Amino acid sequence: MTKVINFQTDPSQYRHWRVEYDGPVANLIMDVDEDQGLFEGYQLKLNSYDLGVDIELADIVQRMRFEHPEVKVVVMQSGKDRVFCAGANIRMLGGAAHSHKVNFCKFTNETRNTYEAAEKDSGQKYIAAVKGACAGGGYELALACNHIMLTDDSTSSVALPEVPLLAVLPGTGGLTRVTDKRKVRRDLADVFCSTEEGVKGKRALDWRLVDEVVPNSKFDATVQERAREFAAAMPKPDATGVALGPLDKTVGEDGSVTYSLIEVAVDRDARKATVTISGPDADAPQDMAAFTAQGDQAYLLRLARELDDAILHLRLNEMELGLLVFRTQGDPELFQAHEALLLANRDHWLANEVLQYWKRLMKRIDVTSRSMSALVEHGSCFTGILAEILWAVDRTYMMEDEFEGDNRPLATVTLTDANFGPLPMGNDLTRLETRFYGTPDAAGQMEDHKNTSLDAEAADKLGLVTMILDDIDWEDEIRIFEEERASFSPDAMTGMEANLRFAGPETMETRIFGRLTAWQNWIFNRPNAVGPDGALQRYGTGLRGEYDMERV
Amino acid sequence: MTKVINFQTDPSQYRHWRVEYDGPVANLIMDVDEDQGLFEGYQLKLNSYDLGVDIELADIVQRMRFEHPEVKVVVMQSGKDRVFCAGANIRMLGGAAHSHKVNFCKFTNETRNTYEAAEKDSGQKYIAAVKGACAGGGYELALACNHIMLTDDSTSSVALPEVPLLAVLPGTGGLTRVTDKRKVRRDLADVFCSTEEGVKGKRALDWRLVDEVVPNSKFDATVQERAREFAAAMPKPDATGVALGPLDKTVGEDGSVTYSLIEVAVDRDARKATVTISGPDADAPQDMAAFTAQGDQAYLLRLARELDDAILHLRLNEMELGLLVFRTQGDPELFQAHEALLLANRDHWLANEVLQYWKRLMKRIDVTSRSMSALVEHGSCFTGILAEILWAVDRTYMMEDEFEGDNRPLATVTLTDANFGPLPMGNDLTRLETRFYGTPDAAGQMEDHKNTSLDAEAADKLGLVTMILDDIDWEDEIRIFEEERASFSPDAMTGMEANLRFAGPETMETRIFGRLTAWQNWIFNRPNAVGPDGALQRYGTGLRGEYDMERV
Repeated sequence: MTKVINFQTDPSQYRHWRVEYDGPVANLIMDVDEDQGLFEGYQLKLNSYDLGVDIELADIVQRMRFEHPEVKVVVMQSGKDRVFCAGANIRMLGGAAHSHKVNFCKFTNETRNTYEAAEKDSGQKYIAAVKGACAGGGYELALACNHIMLTDDSTSSVALPEVPLLAVLPGTGGLTRVTDKRKVRRDLADVFCSTEEGVKGKRALDWRLVDEVVPNSKFDATVQERAREFAAAMPKPDATGVALGPLDKTVGEDGSVTYSLIEVAVDRDARKATVTISGPDADAPQDMAAFTAQGDQAYLLRLARELDDAILHLRLNEMELGLLVFRTQGDPELFQAHEALLLANRDHWLANEVLQYWKRLMKRIDVTSRSMSALVEHGSCFTGILAEILWAVDRTYMMEDEFEGDNRPLATVTLTDANFGPLPMGNDLTRLETRFYGTPDAAGQMEDHKNTSLDAEAADKLGLVTMILDDIDWEDEIRIFEEERASFSPDAMTGMEANLRFAGPETMETRIFGRLTAWQNWIFNRPNAVGPDGALQRYGTGLRGEYDMERV
Repeated sequence: MTKVINFQTDPSQYRHWRVEYDGPVANLIMDVDEDQGLFEGYQLKLNSYDLGVDIELADIVQRMRFEHPEVKVVVMQSGKDRVFCAGANIRMLGGAAHSHKVNFCKFTNETRNTYEAAEKDSGQKYIAAVKGACAGGGYELALACNHIMLTDDSTSSVALPEVPLLAVLPGTGGLTRVTDKRKVRRDLADVFCSTEEGVKGKRALDWRLVDEVVPNSKFDATVQERAREFAAAMPKPDATGVALGPLDKTVGEDGSVTYSLIEVAVDRDARKATVTISGPDADAPQDMAAFTAQGDQAYLLRLARELDDAILHLRLNEMELGLLVFRTQGDPELFQAHEALLLANRDHWLANEVLQYWKRLMKRIDVTSRSMSALVEHGSCFTGILAEILWAVDRTYMMEDEFEGDNRPLATVTLTDANFGPLPMGNDLTRLETRFYGTPDAAGQMEDHKNTSLDAEAADKLGLVTMILDDIDWEDEIRIFEEERASFSPDAMTGMEANLRFAGPETMETRIFGRLTAWQNWIFNRPNAVGPDGALQRYGTGLRGEYDMERV
């Protein structure tokens, strides 16, 4: 699996999904083309999915928000008879490297979280209309919807058969949503998760696994009726979407990637990628009408799309780069002007969508399994939204005083309203609240410093950066840090960062990326699941996995 | 490492610790005998520890509470020059099976949690008086204390060098306590946890890694002064302890274990252990004076000690038993009378200690990595404290109506005050609250049914058991469940149970056993740590680990 994975797609390229728009209701139909897997070696039978299927879904969910703001309810359903979705493709999982499995699950989890949050964030409610078998990752698709309807016939059921059948976990949020969202009683959850054939009809309702069970003869009509009802109850302004065109993106032979606003420089020997973000190249739009007229070329939307793509590209295609270094260059005041327009218009649907997108994007950075640092150099624009990067990464270094031969404006950091609410982490705290978890007063006092250019000394005093360095120390200190980081075991880094980055409260989201993912990754290393006689390899051979019965 | 591990010890057998009792202050001195490791093949140099060292510590902490209620402050310190504690022994870890590593970490975590909670639960506050190197598991010993004092000299530091040195995590709560208890700023935590040599003096204080830094010349005096101060501020009634004598315990050749009140029957073919608990064999003591006079023979204290030992024995010595089945037999009303005495006297130090012990013991069951079930049979006494077992296990089956040829009293479950507060889980909810997380009203209404014998139908209706079965179905259903469970991958079971058992809120404790432990277990399977060229194997050879640099 060494081909370059491309996260960009559009409706003209979809092979596995289609959407029928019908005013405020969109029917989202999963109809996987079994011969169009992302890699060789498996067929996507029974609406099973691989990363390629999920990239399309993520694209649909994104376009639903930006291109179809008129949609209030999305009905996820199957285009096939007798099966809703059979889950992640087992042969794909059986053949995939550990790192691909883990990254695949992370991306699918992010997509599930994204449409699950669409009701609250964007006024788009997802209904799962389940007809036929809905198993494993298929039920996890449904679990992330806001409302689950199940037809009441002899072949339709919901199931999480991973444990009995495959010796792995329902790891795309399944176990966590069963306990924390559906709040299924734990002994019933135990029965459910160890029953291959799943649960049907009234029992599925009684156990809280679905929200409605509907006789088969009335199912389709009831689903559409429910969709209209929900749509009627969702207040949403009329709006016309903006089209998301293709990204301006060039991948170089050395692995570098160039976008209109971002340069990703890859240094394979040093196992490092440097992501340099450019500040705005033009004045901020006058108002949201002007912003909307710019559409996908509006600076903050374009930048978000490019940065999102860059992060995904590095995650899936550059596995040996252990360190991501973030830089910015640009005019901090001009950046703040662009941002201020959105922050002042949070009740405008497009301003809201762009800010929500930055929220999701920053969370994607939070859970990226690479060591990350930020360099606050002279000439940089770590302001507001971009300043969040300073506290998403593991360490931040800032230039202090003038550097010889460097006539860029001195490095500053600027806090804005963006840092005090609109971009919470998965733990529901802001990055500043998480950072100052031990000194809540300090977090509160940060607001007094809003909208001020903080120089190195001030940023250091406030605890906003890890270390400030002058011309004499800058290069050496950073080189030592980067070399040291590149020498550590990547696994230990992953484990350490997964623990240190999320202080304090846990939410369903952090539990999925923390507890559930970590156990799944553990199992993904165990011979009982992935060994030559393990369940994943033996799947479909008629033989059960052969297990080492020692309990750990 | 196949010798039978014995968790019972007493001061006459200690090899690694000693305690100097001095009125309200106890000096707890770690002075590990390097030649007395629990297994062959390593020396416990520099106050490093293995499970044997930790078994002694757990015994001390337990006796401190029961035998020395006069103690208010415990000062943990080193008996060696220049080193406080070097942490878990690396060669032991390098040579241990995965399952031993995991169980070792679980037990040490439980011991850390136990003395950390002693201040709140028992009025015994732990001070770590750190002189010399305090690294890895050594600093984790200190982190679990309630107050950390560090001497300010050139050789004394605190450190978590696991990540840079060993490619594993500080997994005995280290990472979690750094972020959640000490609330160290996350970028400073990142620097700290990737700096082999650790942090000294004022910086350790500034970074919140310790509570006090004291000049070396004044250190010993200041520590004792602080201990006296803390002791003076801790109100505690005068009391004389009760001695904890040896358990009445016999291990049979077939693996069975017999205690005075517990039978552990082992069925290796079925990979099952059945733990049968006997109800009280005599009337409840009249009052706490009578209870105290019975000392360690008082029913509820004796039972707790035996059950605790049985769980630990099964965990560490019977790795291939995947299922623990809990049964009780006895008079429910008599059990309730014994329990009522403690519940009515929660302000009596010994009643409090016995209840606190049950709290810890039930938590030990919660985090036991085996499938667990309970059988509520005719003649059983699942009342109050014992009823907690029904909701700690994964599933509960209850007998319904009369069984042919069985003239024991019909099966009942009785809720008491014990189920509504004194025995919270690690997530700080009661087991009933966790069970009815989806229907909080149901949890509240449970109190209306307190102190009533609930028969099978009533227990089923209230959702207190998973399934009720009559004479016709009982044997088959349970056999099918047990056979099925025994056929599943043990790893998948561990992962599933670790997710399903703890719905809802997370605490530092659940984060340690969930997030941190899962990541550590993952790393404990990765070649970068445990492979032939991994860091654990190469430790001490002068060679660094050789790492696969792919990031996961």
